[in-house]
Amino acid sequence: MAKVSRETILDAAVHLFNQNGYHATSMQDVANAVAIKKPSLYHHFESKEAILLAILEGSMERLIDEMASIANSQNDCATKLRDAVRTHASAIAQNPESAAIFFREDRGLGDAYLARYIEKRDEFEFHFRTIIQEGITSGEFRDTDVAIAVEAIMGMINWMTRWYRPQGRLNAEQIAGLFSDLFLNGLHSHPYALPMISVEKDENQ
Amino acid sequence: MAKVSRETILDAAVHLFNQNGYHATSMQDVANAVAIKKPSLYHHFESKEAILLAILEGSMERLIDEMASIANSQNDCATKLRDAVRTHASAIAQNPESAAIFFREDRGLGDAYLARYIEKRDEFEFHFRTIIQEGITSGEFRDTDVAIAVEAIMGMINWMTRWYRPQGRLNAEQIAGLFSDLFLNGLHSHPYALPMISVEKDENQ
Repeated sequence: MAKVSRETILDAAVHLFNQNGYHATSMQDVANAVAIKKPSLYHHFESKEAILLAILEGSMERLIDEMASIANSQNDCATKLRDAVRTHASAIAQNPESAAIFFREDRGLGDAYLARYIEKRDEFEFHFRTIIQEGITSGEFRDTDVAIAVEAIMGMINWMTRWYRPQGRLNAEQIAGLFSDLFLNGLHSHPYALPMISVEKDENQ
Repeated sequence: MAKVSRETILDAAVHLFNQNGYHATSMQDVANAVAIKKPSLYHHFESKEAILLAILEGSMERLIDEMASIANSQNDCATKLRDAVRTHASAIAQNPESAAIFFREDRGLGDAYLARYIEKRDEFEFHFRTIIQEGITSGEFRDTDVAIAVEAIMGMINWMTRWYRPQGRLNAEQIAGLFSDLFLNGLHSHPYALPMISVEKDENQ
């Protein structure tokens, strides 16, 4: 019987959960996919739920570390926000399958595991909240509702799991740049803040 | 045997799909929930998939009509966008359970049904696209990437299905107002466009 790593099992599970859904995937399916027997699988993970949690937590822990260093940098808050958006968007783009599981299958977690997942998610979002709050305090950002602003930016980025395709027209960096620009500067024409547009208008008059 | 309406069946199915997931819910479960026998249920819906499609299509058709009348109104594009965001956010807030199914269970649809659902979704998003494109053409909006701007606003609003609670601090109208403000005006302080903020700053100096 071949030895398989935790990572190999998780990769196979990500694929199966995406293809067939979490509920429709059995531990036997996961064991078959990596060509081991079920007892060996249970040696790595005590339950299917434990596999799901490992998927949800794994990529999030790396992201949280990156977000912390962005939030704690000496950059201005607009730069921090751009960096945070790019990091988050790139993480989704690099691993769209496990990102999709985040948002489809979190209800598969029982209460104890769900609490651990929510703790990580809150830690992740905390860094966005910190950046926005700091920008408001310094006057760099407008005084908006921080919680809603965080949900707005989370929604913008996480929604990528629904439409982003690696072979698409724009890469994650370009998409993140457009998101940041919209979120920071808004869709509305600001003739003073954005002289390029007012110049064009003058020429047309 | 009691007669039940299509609506009653759909309401029960929405509840079961949210509670247990689409895959884990059987036609027998749905029949039990509305106290009819399985053949009677099949009289209304030929399959579980047909129930899912009816849920996904039902609320979307009403929304599409509202969006069309907003997009075709004589208002400026910022007003149209605010109206569209409010209408969409309110639809989610009024029916959070079926909205959540939209985004968790669309993979439950087979190809033929999925195509019908995607057609409706595209029709819905088309109105947002039209409003943004019209604003760019008129110079009211900045010249951004329309497709990405539409995904950004869809993400902002649809993400409400993940966090909005009817008993929460803000109602759908307030949330929609904050979203529209962020999306139209951006988070960045614009001292010329937003004199209130620059006045406050002057006082503090």
